[in-house]
Amino acid sequence: MVITNSAEHTGPGPGRGPIALMLGHPDPATLATPEFRSAVAAATDAPDFYEGLQYGLDAGTRNLRELLQEKSSREQGLSIGPANLMLVSGATHAVDVLARLYAKPGGVVLVEAPTYPDTLHIFRDHQSELHAIPTDEGGLIVSALEERLAWLKAQGKLPSFLYTIPTFHNPRGSTMSEARRRALLEVADKHTLMIVEDDVYRDLSFNGPVPASCFALAQGHGQRVCSIGSFSKTLAPGLRLGWLVAPPDVIQTCMACGTTQMGGGASPFSAQVVAQYCRSGHWEPHIRRLRAIYAMRRDLMVAALERYMPAETTWTRPEGGFFVWLTLPSMPSTVRAGDVQQVAHEAGVAVAGGEAFFLDPHDGHQHLRLAYSYAAPGDLDAGIRTLAQVINGFMRSQ
Amino acid sequence: MVITNSAEHTGPGPGRGPIALMLGHPDPATLATPEFRSAVAAATDAPDFYEGLQYGLDAGTRNLRELLQEKSSREQGLSIGPANLMLVSGATHAVDVLARLYAKPGGVVLVEAPTYPDTLHIFRDHQSELHAIPTDEGGLIVSALEERLAWLKAQGKLPSFLYTIPTFHNPRGSTMSEARRRALLEVADKHTLMIVEDDVYRDLSFNGPVPASCFALAQGHGQRVCSIGSFSKTLAPGLRLGWLVAPPDVIQTCMACGTTQMGGGASPFSAQVVAQYCRSGHWEPHIRRLRAIYAMRRDLMVAALERYMPAETTWTRPEGGFFVWLTLPSMPSTVRAGDVQQVAHEAGVAVAGGEAFFLDPHDGHQHLRLAYSYAAPGDLDAGIRTLAQVINGFMRSQ
Repeated sequence: MVITNSAEHTGPGPGRGPIALMLGHPDPATLATPEFRSAVAAATDAPDFYEGLQYGLDAGTRNLRELLQEKSSREQGLSIGPANLMLVSGATHAVDVLARLYAKPGGVVLVEAPTYPDTLHIFRDHQSELHAIPTDEGGLIVSALEERLAWLKAQGKLPSFLYTIPTFHNPRGSTMSEARRRALLEVADKHTLMIVEDDVYRDLSFNGPVPASCFALAQGHGQRVCSIGSFSKTLAPGLRLGWLVAPPDVIQTCMACGTTQMGGGASPFSAQVVAQYCRSGHWEPHIRRLRAIYAMRRDLMVAALERYMPAETTWTRPEGGFFVWLTLPSMPSTVRAGDVQQVAHEAGVAVAGGEAFFLDPHDGHQHLRLAYSYAAPGDLDAGIRTLAQVINGFMRSQ
Repeated sequence: MVITNSAEHTGPGPGRGPIALMLGHPDPATLATPEFRSAVAAATDAPDFYEGLQYGLDAGTRNLRELLQEKSSREQGLSIGPANLMLVSGATHAVDVLARLYAKPGGVVLVEAPTYPDTLHIFRDHQSELHAIPTDEGGLIVSALEERLAWLKAQGKLPSFLYTIPTFHNPRGSTMSEARRRALLEVADKHTLMIVEDDVYRDLSFNGPVPASCFALAQGHGQRVCSIGSFSKTLAPGLRLGWLVAPPDVIQTCMACGTTQMGGGASPFSAQVVAQYCRSGHWEPHIRRLRAIYAMRRDLMVAALERYMPAETTWTRPEGGFFVWLTLPSMPSTVRAGDVQQVAHEAGVAVAGGEAFFLDPHDGHQHLRLAYSYAAPGDLDAGIRTLAQVINGFMRSQ
């Protein structure tokens, strides 16, 4: 992999737009690697190339499923077979199909506060009734979940599922400990609650192994856990390719969905290329390089935050993934995220205000999500410096 | 394009499965052409290759949209601009997003009888209330639509849209005349009915120009028509790529959908490759060759039907697309499609029973859909001969 200077795509300056700390996009310099280009060429020359051009199997390209079954099983000490895994067109597709088939219109879906806003959008498109469970620096607060489940039960409501991001949370950056995951599974078992685990950042750990997935911890205990993986963070989002690991009946149901039946399996053309790439042994070394790249980016952003931010501001120091979660000063009075976002944009830095990450936008007005994944590394310092100036400006004006 | 013998994928024989007259898949020999392989290589080497690997624009890859705007405008005498067209991940995606956003749960959707079964599946996944409008050899019967609309209005129900396949209908093979399309638009205007026009077979005409699309005929008249196109029939379904042409407000709404916001634009990697392929001038000559190939396949199937079928059997002779629609003998008593399908499969020929194409399966039990698009050309005669033997067998046993 060649790490080129990606400043021409993301940096500030004439005609280049603001420094992009807003988007959870992968580093552009990591996308079109020589290894990936070679895999495209090899896949195109292979005798089975036409298979990626025809309608595909409902479960997705077999070669790639087998590679993912092997990797997931090996890394998590599981025995994931063909009945447990299907390809999806990115995590988007998995969330959408589960919402469609399990949270039928008006169904109750539990989400974390904060959570990934685009999933809220999908649940709302399906007219789900949404309830938010609070989180702390260790992720979902299990006692709060249990209280909400009891309250819903008293209303005669049975939630369709909980959507959670236990590992390198978007936007908090937090990771649930194994103990907390086990407590979550116990509560889920008691209330017959299905868990949809968005685990797309799992491979991007900066400090070694992460806790086992909820899917892995649930094995042999009967709880219903669906775990979503994706090539969007560890290879390329434009491929529209991910996978769903789930109990066999859930996989069967999702494969029988109307969109799968009509369109064939997920992204067959991309899957053919990615199977070639993985078979050539390129993916896991690439993931190891990505860990180093994003750890370096995280370090650059955290160092800049320490250098420039006013003392009243706090932030997380994530151990993996793409995001820092920043809390704005509340003294003498609260600096509002929406205001900071707007003025920062005018000053050449795009950040995500916290409002969108909560069911009740009011809960997010003291937070910003800062992505260190996408902007040119050389711009992270300048971006944070400008953002700190904007925040200081609001504090002085109070 | 090299036309290879595709018998190894689709023909009968040991380990090869039945002769596939069931699936509306394109001819496998037309997929992995040298021109397409060259386009993949050129796209991979191009400096903008990384754009197809990142999250894409909500409307889809700009280059490809511009090519489609130009082609649609030129062929239909329109002026389709960026506000009228977005890329989708195949017709599936377009049908799904329109069902989700315009036929909210419980919304009323009108379909044709018969219609494409996988769309029924999608509408049912969205819990739409479905009503079927009968068709004849000229397509949708407009007076029947008007009667149903009046009846629904009396019930206080306003349909979300009509889903129609006006050109080379799946499964009937029929094409609505321009006069009938205009009559449809008049009724739609009177009842403020949105029309979703599935036009994926438009380019596969065997006898020259087809009537203008409902979208084209509606221009300047204020009717709301959405027209769906696809690369699945004229390039390769595994790419998961199509387009939606619609009024600007509909395009805006579909782009703001949760799945688009979460996943980025439709299949960016495929779109980058297809843009390169089209820009090199390969697509339109390829379409012309496909017309000749599918006309030859249609001729082979129709000749076999004339040769082998009992006199009591009738069938359509489509002017384009992939399908013959066969009506089974009703004398001395009806031969049932489900029975024929099962016995034919045991005899080595897969066909689609008519039941799945109707809201009420009973309406389809006298029909079969026969796809001439996919099986090896050399197997079409043998497949129809076997099918005729099965039908004759049922007639003799009555």
